[in-house]
Amino acid sequence: MNAAVLTSTKKIEMQQTAIPVPKEDEVLIRLRAVGVCGSDVHYYEHGKIGRYVVEKPIILGHEASGEIVKTGANVPPHLQAGQRVAIEPGATCGKCEYCTSGRYNLCPHVEFLATPPYDGVFSEYAVVRADLVFPIPDDMSFETAALIEPFSVGLHAVRRGELQAGETVVIMGMGPIGLLTAANAKLAGAKTVIGVDLEQGRLDAALKLGATHVVNLRQYDLQEKVAEITAGQGVDVAIETAGNPKAVQGAIAAVKRGGRVVVVGMSPQDEVPVNMSLIVDSELDLRGVFRYHDTYPAAIEILSRKTIDIEQIITGKYALNETAAAFEKALGDKTNTLKLMVYPSL
Amino acid sequence: MNAAVLTSTKKIEMQQTAIPVPKEDEVLIRLRAVGVCGSDVHYYEHGKIGRYVVEKPIILGHEASGEIVKTGANVPPHLQAGQRVAIEPGATCGKCEYCTSGRYNLCPHVEFLATPPYDGVFSEYAVVRADLVFPIPDDMSFETAALIEPFSVGLHAVRRGELQAGETVVIMGMGPIGLLTAANAKLAGAKTVIGVDLEQGRLDAALKLGATHVVNLRQYDLQEKVAEITAGQGVDVAIETAGNPKAVQGAIAAVKRGGRVVVVGMSPQDEVPVNMSLIVDSELDLRGVFRYHDTYPAAIEILSRKTIDIEQIITGKYALNETAAAFEKALGDKTNTLKLMVYPSL
Amino acid sequence: MNAAVLTSTKKIEMQQTAIPVPKEDEVLIRLRAVGVCGSDVHYYEHGKIGRYVVEKPIILGHEASGEIVKTGANVPPHLQAGQRVAIEPGATCGKCEYCTSGRYNLCPHVEFLATPPYDGVFSEYAVVRADLVFPIPDDMSFETAALIEPFSVGLHAVRRGELQAGETVVIMGMGPIGLLTAANAKLAGAKTVIGVDLEQGRLDAALKLGATHVVNLRQYDLQEKVAEITAGQGVDVAIETAGNPKAVQGAIAAVKRGGRVVVVGMSPQDEVPVNMSLIVDSELDLRGVFRYHDTYPAAIEILSRKTIDIEQIITGKYALNETAAAFEKALGDKTNTLKLMVYPSL
Amino acid sequence: MNAAVLTSTKKIEMQQTAIPVPKEDEVLIRLRAVGVCGSDVHYYEHGKIGRYVVEKPIILGHEASGEIVKTGANVPPHLQAGQRVAIEPGATCGKCEYCTSGRYNLCPHVEFLATPPYDGVFSEYAVVRADLVFPIPDDMSFETAALIEPFSVGLHAVRRGELQAGETVVIMGMGPIGLLTAANAKLAGAKTVIGVDLEQGRLDAALKLGATHVVNLRQYDLQEKVAEITAGQGVDVAIETAGNPKAVQGAIAAVKRGGRVVVVGMSPQDEVPVNMSLIVDSELDLRGVFRYHDTYPAAIEILSRKTIDIEQIITGKYALNETAAAFEKALGDKTNTLKLMVYPSL
Repeated sequence: MNAAVLTSTKKIEMQQTAIPVPKEDEVLIRLRAVGVCGSDVHYYEHGKIGRYVVEKPIILGHEASGEIVKTGANVPPHLQAGQRVAIEPGATCGKCEYCTSGRYNLCPHVEFLATPPYDGVFSEYAVVRADLVFPIPDDMSFETAALIEPFSVGLHAVRRGELQAGETVVIMGMGPIGLLTAANAKLAGAKTVIGVDLEQGRLDAALKLGATHVVNLRQYDLQEKVAEITAGQGVDVAIETAGNPKAVQGAIAAVKRGGRVVVVGMSPQDEVPVNMSLIVDSELDLRGVFRYHDTYPAAIEILSRKTIDIEQIITGKYALNETAAAFEKALGDKTNTLKLMVYPSL
Repeated sequence: MNAAVLTSTKKIEMQQTAIPVPKEDEVLIRLRAVGVCGSDVHYYEHGKIGRYVVEKPIILGHEASGEIVKTGANVPPHLQAGQRVAIEPGATCGKCEYCTSGRYNLCPHVEFLATPPYDGVFSEYAVVRADLVFPIPDDMSFETAALIEPFSVGLHAVRRGELQAGETVVIMGMGPIGLLTAANAKLAGAKTVIGVDLEQGRLDAALKLGATHVVNLRQYDLQEKVAEITAGQGVDVAIETAGNPKAVQGAIAAVKRGGRVVVVGMSPQDEVPVNMSLIVDSELDLRGVFRYHDTYPAAIEILSRKTIDIEQIITGKYALNETAAAFEKALGDKTNTLKLMVYPSL
Repeated sequence: MNAAVLTSTKKIEMQQTAIPVPKEDEVLIRLRAVGVCGSDVHYYEHGKIGRYVVEKPIILGHEASGEIVKTGANVPPHLQAGQRVAIEPGATCGKCEYCTSGRYNLCPHVEFLATPPYDGVFSEYAVVRADLVFPIPDDMSFETAALIEPFSVGLHAVRRGELQAGETVVIMGMGPIGLLTAANAKLAGAKTVIGVDLEQGRLDAALKLGATHVVNLRQYDLQEKVAEITAGQGVDVAIETAGNPKAVQGAIAAVKRGGRVVVVGMSPQDEVPVNMSLIVDSELDLRGVFRYHDTYPAAIEILSRKTIDIEQIITGKYALNETAAAFEKALGDKTNTLKLMVYPSL
Repeated sequence: MNAAVLTSTKKIEMQQTAIPVPKEDEVLIRLRAVGVCGSDVHYYEHGKIGRYVVEKPIILGHEASGEIVKTGANVPPHLQAGQRVAIEPGATCGKCEYCTSGRYNLCPHVEFLATPPYDGVFSEYAVVRADLVFPIPDDMSFETAALIEPFSVGLHAVRRGELQAGETVVIMGMGPIGLLTAANAKLAGAKTVIGVDLEQGRLDAALKLGATHVVNLRQYDLQEKVAEITAGQGVDVAIETAGNPKAVQGAIAAVKRGGRVVVVGMSPQDEVPVNMSLIVDSELDLRGVFRYHDTYPAAIEILSRKTIDIEQIITGKYALNETAAAFEKALGDKTNTLKLMVYPSL
């Protein structure tokens, strides 16, 4: 089979390898759509993210869907050859205190696709543990199924924010995660969803994906706009996906007394100065988000409703042998790029 | 002013009384729409509900909206003459352990409109404590605003059920409360909302108000249909609004392992035999619902979105001097009656 | 090795079998203390519990502690030969929706010690999956470690009841589960812990294990005593461990408005008539308890404090070859028997 | 009556005023013990705290107990002349969204004793709204009853931290709030309570008030000690009461993955640099604490158990006419001063 392999920084080569054989609790999947994530691009450009370092050639890609080709002996019967599926990329241990207590996203033993040293799925085929493979409805596209991965981050963020029907939320950053968070907020019944970014193109996309209001920070002051939209109250929930300190600070300032701030984005620097007096005096909650847990079945249900078409975030499509071009596009045209999709089986 | 007064069982008379004067923390409201609730009809027919007994002439009606006519000296400035408002009918003490801890619906000192000995609002005017009066948007009808009261019961039921986006719910009974619960479930992001009743007319209404599936118990077995709709899993949440033992039992049987059963309806008999082995073995939660708390602001937000038109449950409209006719209709034609609306200011 | 095998109803034979060999993720344990559970006695007497039927000879016993003798190749380093451990008896799949979402006690694929067709541990040795084996402090007795299993049921019940420091709780039934629930309630900071039973001996034990008050139902009316102890308020939480309908009903009647009722005991009959009007009108929560999850590490911490000596519930000690005698004692002298302990390595 | 009045910065004068008369929903209380809070001392020294400015002579003091002398016409019958009581100092509106939803500590309309412009209770008598007055048991001292106020802050902090029985907690700062937080943690069933401070005297007090371990930051590195005590795991919960940025940072670094950080102390500067990467990557929760809600009844229950004697934090006792001396002591000998108690009725 063909695979797009990152052999060194900024160098992706097509290589041929044997199609892997599923073990008894695994399935072999023919990949059909694999999104390019910001983390993929970061590994491509820098060869590492924090403590995760690419030390040998690696296949990137972890936002994926496909069709089952072959099943191991112990795979449950709802997974059969031909079944169209979405793939959850993190194989957790199932036994540590985090796995048993409902927060498997914090499992220290997780093997996550495209996080070194584990290969991802910019390849024609891959084997995946059966419990990470979720059937999708016939009328759900492979693109939507692949996007369940970043959509899951947004779903988890909305859950961490305990967003209730009728509430107001501001979302900092209208990149793919921010946009999919906006979609989740809207689908969970939020009344007011304020998308915030510097790029008008992203804000235009936000309005199609669930935002009821947008704020372009090149033109407006965030707090003034939030005050205007919420009649001076502030929002119930703020979700930070932009990954910069100012956005974190803006999120904290935007919530009302007793409000909840959810931080998804990783800022380039570890330390962020926050208004701790405000957090104490207004009794705010600030909650980190690391990936997600228990989102795939719910996301499939939510997206089956089709009230919001999340495929709208796709701004470019590539064949597997164009994977390198996709990465160059992502690096070179950040303004116009939201989500790029690679099709391994074209 | 004119008021429709229940002078004895099944006897409503129009009477003239002085327009009341608001105290410093009250507002005088000209009523514009007041719904007829099942409890009103029960007082009309039987003169009591459980421990609440009508012992002197009483004005019924507690699902209400109107316009502010006059404000007391200490009323906050967002309430001004001319403001269109929805009225929350329960005046709680604000000081007991239930009021302070976020469950004011359980306040033992509540004074609730149209619950003896307190008058309701089938009248041209009424004074209401300012904190129970909520401005509505210009484009929200008085009918929708009056319906916020029963809608609140549904919202509280959905909250008590901790219904999450993407989950499945069955709702027993498609009377006004069941229908408005279905609307709330849908607006909160439920994927599958199964409405259950014996009357096809109500089930037809359910499909307009948020139900994605309906089950007519004259034709189908509930558990078979739930199994069919949920691929044998059972629902995440069951909400009982029908007020009969079989519906409670059906709700308990319909949820999956670890599921939540919310009981809103009062059965004619206190004791209901429930499958306690199932509750223990499947670790179910069964949760009562008594009225609601903290719903009005959220409901106004939710209903401002207009994705579901809850006025569709109105099956009859009456002038204030036709209030008796409305009650007779409610009693005499249960099959075709959902919500009847009285207009005190026509 | 020797094992006590239930070969047919009421017949336990000592048999010799090979010492099992641990697989790579398992440990071989020399059992040191194994409690006799009511479910063991029920299988002994009736050959089945509900849908679980003993169809071939089975080793009973699932409340166990011991020493590690040998470890599989992949066992983590905190488990070494010689380590004293408590054993959690349920091997769950780690992958189903219940396992991933923090309620592994509801895993449909669980293999539970001494639940047919899986053998238990009234034997000299057993192999156990490494993640189910928890080191205990040097100064914790094997008896206490074995009792962590029923203590876990009490801990889970207290958690399900969301019991807060300073609250009041009534516990129906002062058998081993009830007593260990009382201990948990006290250790969680409950102010008032009311133990209820018909047997004075059990109530005397309750006072040593955490109960602050006891009610002998042969002498007193439950609701009168609860009213007296709580100044007419009712308790915050009621936990039913007796397994009979009257106890369930008493628990529901004992809680205050908005209170929580936790049902642990399985009544002989499935259907229990409950006061549903009270559940609705007082907005009660009724919550089933099935086994427990995520309790072993916490229970070891809690019991290390030694403020309550749970070994006091042991009323008889037996060698492995006296297992049959233990069962006969449990069946024949229910009044004086609380927990019987078998010592496989004496 | 006599009152200690702050007439200008650092100047307290004894003045005589009329004994106030209770309105219909108020009681007149003869004060018996009133603690000196750090906020009192701050007003004494600086004349303001943040936005709260002393603009006219003010009576300080809000940690109070006493005896009812006279009751208004509408006061409930459990409050009678002669009843010994603890006083909750914050009179909230009971009607805003915070009051109705269970977080009355965030009520924007609160009138709080000794927060300008409202007088406190360093005086012989005071009138207090009846719902803020809580009877105490006959055997609870007035000192303990007065200390319920700062104890409530600790109780609320422990609740905000969702501390569970068996968990581990580190508490930064062993001043009065830190010490009473330690007591609450212990009484709620925490296994390991680590008190942290720079002063050995405070750490010695901590060991008497619930701490199981202490760390003197003059001698040890916090993270090393936490690692040692928790076997490298980190604590479940960290509570910051010291009010300085380093303590906030230490708290964040001390919790395990998925842990909870509660911030009670106000740092001198608003902005505190925090490790946001760690908050995101470890999915931490950081939660502010502002005063408390719904603590008085629970605190009275908890403290009735007498397992921890919180009066041990009192390091000085003063008559009402020695109030100025108490303030000078608090300012001049911070090292040896924990809680100073004023006795208005000596």
